[in-house]
Amino acid sequence: MSNPIKTTGYAAASATSPLAPFHFERRALRPNDIAMEVLYCGVCHTDLHWSHNDWGWTIFPAVPGHEIVGRVIEVGPEVKRYQVGDHVAVGCMVDSCQHCDQCKKDEEQLCREGNTGTYGGFDRFTKEYTLGGYSKHLVVREEFALRIPDGLDLTRTAPLLCAGITTYSPLRTWNVGPGSRVGVIGLGGLGHMAVKLASGMGAHVTVLSRTANKMADALALGADALLVSTDEEAMAKAANRFDLIIDTVPVKHDLNPYMPLLDVDGTLVLVGQVGPLAEPSTVPLILGRRRIAGSPIGGIRETQEMLDFCAKKNILPDIEMIRMDQINDAFARLEKADVRYRFVIDMATLNAPAAA
Amino acid sequence: MSNPIKTTGYAAASATSPLAPFHFERRALRPNDIAMEVLYCGVCHTDLHWSHNDWGWTIFPAVPGHEIVGRVIEVGPEVKRYQVGDHVAVGCMVDSCQHCDQCKKDEEQLCREGNTGTYGGFDRFTKEYTLGGYSKHLVVREEFALRIPDGLDLTRTAPLLCAGITTYSPLRTWNVGPGSRVGVIGLGGLGHMAVKLASGMGAHVTVLSRTANKMADALALGADALLVSTDEEAMAKAANRFDLIIDTVPVKHDLNPYMPLLDVDGTLVLVGQVGPLAEPSTVPLILGRRRIAGSPIGGIRETQEMLDFCAKKNILPDIEMIRMDQINDAFARLEKADVRYRFVIDMATLNAPAAA
Repeated sequence: MSNPIKTTGYAAASATSPLAPFHFERRALRPNDIAMEVLYCGVCHTDLHWSHNDWGWTIFPAVPGHEIVGRVIEVGPEVKRYQVGDHVAVGCMVDSCQHCDQCKKDEEQLCREGNTGTYGGFDRFTKEYTLGGYSKHLVVREEFALRIPDGLDLTRTAPLLCAGITTYSPLRTWNVGPGSRVGVIGLGGLGHMAVKLASGMGAHVTVLSRTANKMADALALGADALLVSTDEEAMAKAANRFDLIIDTVPVKHDLNPYMPLLDVDGTLVLVGQVGPLAEPSTVPLILGRRRIAGSPIGGIRETQEMLDFCAKKNILPDIEMIRMDQINDAFARLEKADVRYRFVIDMATLNAPAAA
Repeated sequence: MSNPIKTTGYAAASATSPLAPFHFERRALRPNDIAMEVLYCGVCHTDLHWSHNDWGWTIFPAVPGHEIVGRVIEVGPEVKRYQVGDHVAVGCMVDSCQHCDQCKKDEEQLCREGNTGTYGGFDRFTKEYTLGGYSKHLVVREEFALRIPDGLDLTRTAPLLCAGITTYSPLRTWNVGPGSRVGVIGLGGLGHMAVKLASGMGAHVTVLSRTANKMADALALGADALLVSTDEEAMAKAANRFDLIIDTVPVKHDLNPYMPLLDVDGTLVLVGQVGPLAEPSTVPLILGRRRIAGSPIGGIRETQEMLDFCAKKNILPDIEMIRMDQINDAFARLEKADVRYRFVIDMATLNAPAAA
């Protein structure tokens, strides 16, 4: 049996501390574990919420990061799928019960006992809280590692593991394909992936934006149109135009202007805001048999399918690569939505000298 | 060509007037029209809202009534489906464009040009506003009349035309059948029909009620269980228990206590409240991929299917029969939810002497 792996990460020591270097150990490999050297880690808004204890249940020290790309450096004796040297990825979860109906349907994200988050999750074996991908190494059971298909650009793959699957999964759940009419509200990390993925599936994609400023960006990402949501006349004309709207807005907002845009039996899927919405009216729901839904990440099988789809279609996020020691600046910019469209940390910089 | 039909109804002259006798004419029959003598008319909460101008768009004089049972007394020369003497019913709509995609799918309730309401609807031929079923006679194009199957008790059929179809339609849309786990919130006109219909389809039906007082009533209507929604422990135990919840509550309310009761991919369907809801949290939606939807009445084909289903299964509303001149008292009792579970007006009493 292997020994625990000494590693280094970046952690928040408290809700008010900036992230700073942190030395800790990864568990000794269990028989079905793989150890990976982390090469890249995406920066999700959730990382920021977690580090700042915005939801009140952060366990400190907190090492965020759940968009993780790396290389296998060791495998347990029972590992079947991976070999040393393979490129692998880990997303938002690292374990689940593996025996409930949801796990058996490959929907581990909806595990009846709760999946184990990649950070802040309670590990059912070690009884410790998990630490995320802002670190040099990660140990994970092989069932929760994804294979990175040949040809996918490793430097841009990481955000697929959260922003990618969170938008891919509802597009699949609601059967988006050629001819589907998809709207996307919000053009950030999730929104820009929703545009690329829906477009890659053959849908007609419209970005809904408060101003026309984002027109060129929307079209460059693959959208077919941009609808200015503050233009009442344009919004009225667009009634019944969409089969599915992916709503990536991460704050409390009002769905009422958007609901009439859905066709009969159309669905607005919430993937951004975690918390309250403004009071919705039932009128557009009842009159048009319209629907509001939420969607989490996807299961492991679906996440692998998404990676394979992205490799085949050459779909990758637009990213800005940062050094590990730039993470606190990146958080500050993220709070202002000042990123196009996702920060990725080059983990090779973790041991590099700090910037001036 | 026939002449207009002189008839008598009960109308509100203004938002503050009680309903009172009102003499008017029904249109001369068009070739595809039938004329019916109204035998019974159900009293829907919408009738009360309309008469009181609660929504601000009532056209006075207002003759309410859209749960209409009668007998054919005359047919136009091109009428194919009905003969004089047939028992027929009319629900919430009397016309639609008949050529849009929704009409062609037999979903006239979702007509792209808007269906014509049985009262307060703008008649596209006469350019007049329609007057409803609180009247001795009705003229309707045959496409919007339903055949009352033999064996259905005429005195109790009327409420099926609104309360029945409004709950039947979502049960069908969401594929309720044997093994389905259905919750029903609110045990009024719609709720008691939802219980009977879902039970008739083979579902396991649970009434959600603020108190246990309604247990005996719920079981008598065909429910398998009652869940007390103010009992936090019982509610927590019931997490993920339902595939579908039919929410018949007709006022602004909070969905948050109910959403965790839905299983993954489960839906809460709103059929009662027309207006705002309290702020919903996205958390149960996202974590469980749960859904909120609205549903209107059904189309004509589905309404006929519902009537045939009710005849086959002997499903009928529980009603309290009233005389026409008791309608204002009935409205007052309806405002206090003091009815089990639907008033039906015996239209033969329209010419009877007024009560003391």
